Amino acid sequence: MTMLDDVLSHIDANLPASLDRLFHLLRIESISTDPAYREQVRAAADWLSGELDGIGFAASVRPTTGHPMVVAHDPDDAGGPHVLFYGHYDVQPVDPLDEWDSPPFEPRIETVDGHEQIVARGASDDKGQLMTFVEACRAWKAVTGSLPIRVSVLFEGEEESGSPSLKPFLEANAEDLRADLALVCDTDMWDRQRPAITVMLRGLVGEEITITAADRDLHSGLYGGAARNPIHVLADIIARLRDADGRVTVPGFYDGVDDLPADVKALWDSLGFDSDAFLGDVGLSLPAGETGRSVLEQIWARPTCEVNGITGGYTGEGFKTVIPAKASAKISFRLVGGQDPDQIRRNFRDFVEGHLPADCSVTFAEHGGAQALRLPFTGDALSRARAALTDEWGMEPALVGSGGSIPVVGELKQALGIDSLMIGFALDDDRIHSPNEKYDVSSFRGGIRSWARVLAALAT
Amino acid sequence: MTMLDDVLSHIDANLPASLDRLFHLLRIESISTDPAYREQVRAAADWLSGELDGIGFAASVRPTTGHPMVVAHDPDDAGGPHVLFYGHYDVQPVDPLDEWDSPPFEPRIETVDGHEQIVARGASDDKGQLMTFVEACRAWKAVTGSLPIRVSVLFEGEEESGSPSLKPFLEANAEDLRADLALVCDTDMWDRQRPAITVMLRGLVGEEITITAADRDLHSGLYGGAARNPIHVLADIIARLRDADGRVTVPGFYDGVDDLPADVKALWDSLGFDSDAFLGDVGLSLPAGETGRSVLEQIWARPTCEVNGITGGYTGEGFKTVIPAKASAKISFRLVGGQDPDQIRRNFRDFVEGHLPADCSVTFAEHGGAQALRLPFTGDALSRARAALTDEWGMEPALVGSGGSIPVVGELKQALGIDSLMIGFALDDDRIHSPNEKYDVSSFRGGIRSWARVLAALAT
Repeated sequence: MTMLDDVLSHIDANLPASLDRLFHLLRIESISTDPAYREQVRAAADWLSGELDGIGFAASVRPTTGHPMVVAHDPDDAGGPHVLFYGHYDVQPVDPLDEWDSPPFEPRIETVDGHEQIVARGASDDKGQLMTFVEACRAWKAVTGSLPIRVSVLFEGEEESGSPSLKPFLEANAEDLRADLALVCDTDMWDRQRPAITVMLRGLVGEEITITAADRDLHSGLYGGAARNPIHVLADIIARLRDADGRVTVPGFYDGVDDLPADVKALWDSLGFDSDAFLGDVGLSLPAGETGRSVLEQIWARPTCEVNGITGGYTGEGFKTVIPAKASAKISFRLVGGQDPDQIRRNFRDFVEGHLPADCSVTFAEHGGAQALRLPFTGDALSRARAALTDEWGMEPALVGSGGSIPVVGELKQALGIDSLMIGFALDDDRIHSPNEKYDVSSFRGGIRSWARVLAALAT
Repeated sequence: MTMLDDVLSHIDANLPASLDRLFHLLRIESISTDPAYREQVRAAADWLSGELDGIGFAASVRPTTGHPMVVAHDPDDAGGPHVLFYGHYDVQPVDPLDEWDSPPFEPRIETVDGHEQIVARGASDDKGQLMTFVEACRAWKAVTGSLPIRVSVLFEGEEESGSPSLKPFLEANAEDLRADLALVCDTDMWDRQRPAITVMLRGLVGEEITITAADRDLHSGLYGGAARNPIHVLADIIARLRDADGRVTVPGFYDGVDDLPADVKALWDSLGFDSDAFLGDVGLSLPAGETGRSVLEQIWARPTCEVNGITGGYTGEGFKTVIPAKASAKISFRLVGGQDPDQIRRNFRDFVEGHLPADCSVTFAEHGGAQALRLPFTGDALSRARAALTDEWGMEPALVGSGGSIPVVGELKQALGIDSLMIGFALDDDRIHSPNEKYDVSSFRGGIRSWARVLAALAT
């Protein structure tokens, strides 16, 4: 038996204790976007810092102007490449609460079609994922007393609310955090059998717009027909944001967007992606995006505009004949290639202002921005990680794109100059950001074992 | 001194006690559209029934499948025409609560620019208005022991939630409620000096639509670009409901809509309506409705389509990158002339279904409907009421249209075969349905005095 075999056996033997620790973290209601949960977000950071200390890291909870960061270093320098592992301990809000089958912060294991699943908010995104790395480190330390390579850890508490503190924190702590390579665990497997390494990420621009017309709510009987209704104005603007072919109409939006290179297209075609099943799993049958693009292109390699929330007027039970003073929407753009988030934000704002009718005003609130990212498909660390994952899963990992943005990858590159290996164990059907979010126990176990192998592979 | 003079003096001398009673009614949170307030709506009905009993009416609270009706008859048959007075004791919801300067159900008197104003939800719409009639009857009974003519009273508790029980109640109680003429107090004065009688009312169709795409909320990073977003679908439909000239595009919508007759147009032109001031008072400067129509036409004599509420996706603080499973809107149409509410509801539903893209479904909920109404500009009762109002206010009343629908007027005509005299004392700036709703003490006092005079005028 090699040391690695001992570590893997230890992981399997101690899986119940690993699950207990994950459940403890899942019970903490660390919703970062809602200020009412501030104390719980802090509690999650404190708990993680304590766990890392317990394993033998030198860990600390570092304040920011928002939620804190957890930073930990392994005091033993094992040599080899120095890696910085990143995960986030904050979670999405839980509404609509009435669609959860059990309370979102009371984790439980449910068996569905023979698969044991951990059901809770954050089970997959990202508490379950980050704990795979913590538990892998714990196993190495328990079995061998040390880690195969030099490891530092960074846990963020604002990933689900636009990561406002990330960039300034990385810049202010660049010396402390600099490593040779980042490991990021916030992505999916290809499917239950095949692991994946994500090498292409869409970027993001988040904007909230509020349109105001009259200076008060008006009775639609008394004023209807003469007074401007900001819900109509907002609907008109949203309708104009896309053309009949599903293309975004903001001027300059496609600057920096290239067609997919032939080699990437060939690789993706070889994956045998079943777009009917992908859509059918969520009750849909036809792709709704740009015409003439495959579903994989639409979700990995094409930019989008989505309204993520809209509200205006009376939205309670019953009816109220009001012309509201204002209406607002949360709108996000997914970016690819060389699209410039700042330029797109400016062009979007100009577009909205250009379509405002008389008597209306608009205010904008910024909710995060990140450039798209593409990693080289080759390289030593990538090859070693591919081999480690192949050993664990018995199958070569897919090299994939991801539709969601993971701003930290771009920030790590910009602030610290380091590339990221994005390896995650979530599944398509994990319902992240939705009611009844889950993480398969096989993802959790396989994730811990995979990291144990990757750490060893990077050392050799 | 005539008896009428004695009654008017009594009204002025007892105004503080009348205000106390109104304040009692205003403290009852009778929001009919929200089931949470069911008991308070009932409490308002009980209190009114008790007050009418106390004056000498035979009053009762009558159950319906929704909120109860209050019915009262004066047991003394004074002869002359038999009038049925109508008002409603339910009120609108109070949101946005944080825009109220004082709690909406704690009435207070505030002096603004020399005008004493009663500030509370329902102060104007319609508790203050209906109490003008109750207090006029109380004064006649107190001074003379009887009323000048035969009077019955009907108070509704569902006017602000679509009046679902009104039609069946009128039909089931037609014999008990039939009178020669209805008096309805739910409209405005022309301005602080000039009273008004409303002779033209817009109708209403209220609809709530909910559009569903995927069977769950989706992450906009993972699915954005391929999955249908129901907020986009809803925005597209709303945008298509009106054309560039502000006309409603639902097929057949303008069937039964005629241009304003020359005599009505002449009368309205003579009113000297200041459309700049009307819009300017609420922070607007340009009419937003159909091009080529005056503001008075737009709000009194033209049909409209308004979105009164819209909601979908994440609407809390911060940001959530979700593609929601569904989005919904509350939409109302104001009707004029011969427009058929049922036909328009059907045509609207066909229109929505005709614009649904693949993978989307829609559900509709009905929120009330009423045909538009136009009363003859001549007639004995109208002449007598005009004279009575002229005596009270020193100025001939304006004969006006109203943009808001008062469904009871059509229902009374249909179920009981009787016409309505619509006389109200509200003012343009009463902020009904909005925060800080108010009713001028001069409206309340002048209203009580006006009804005392109208009762006398109808008797002679």
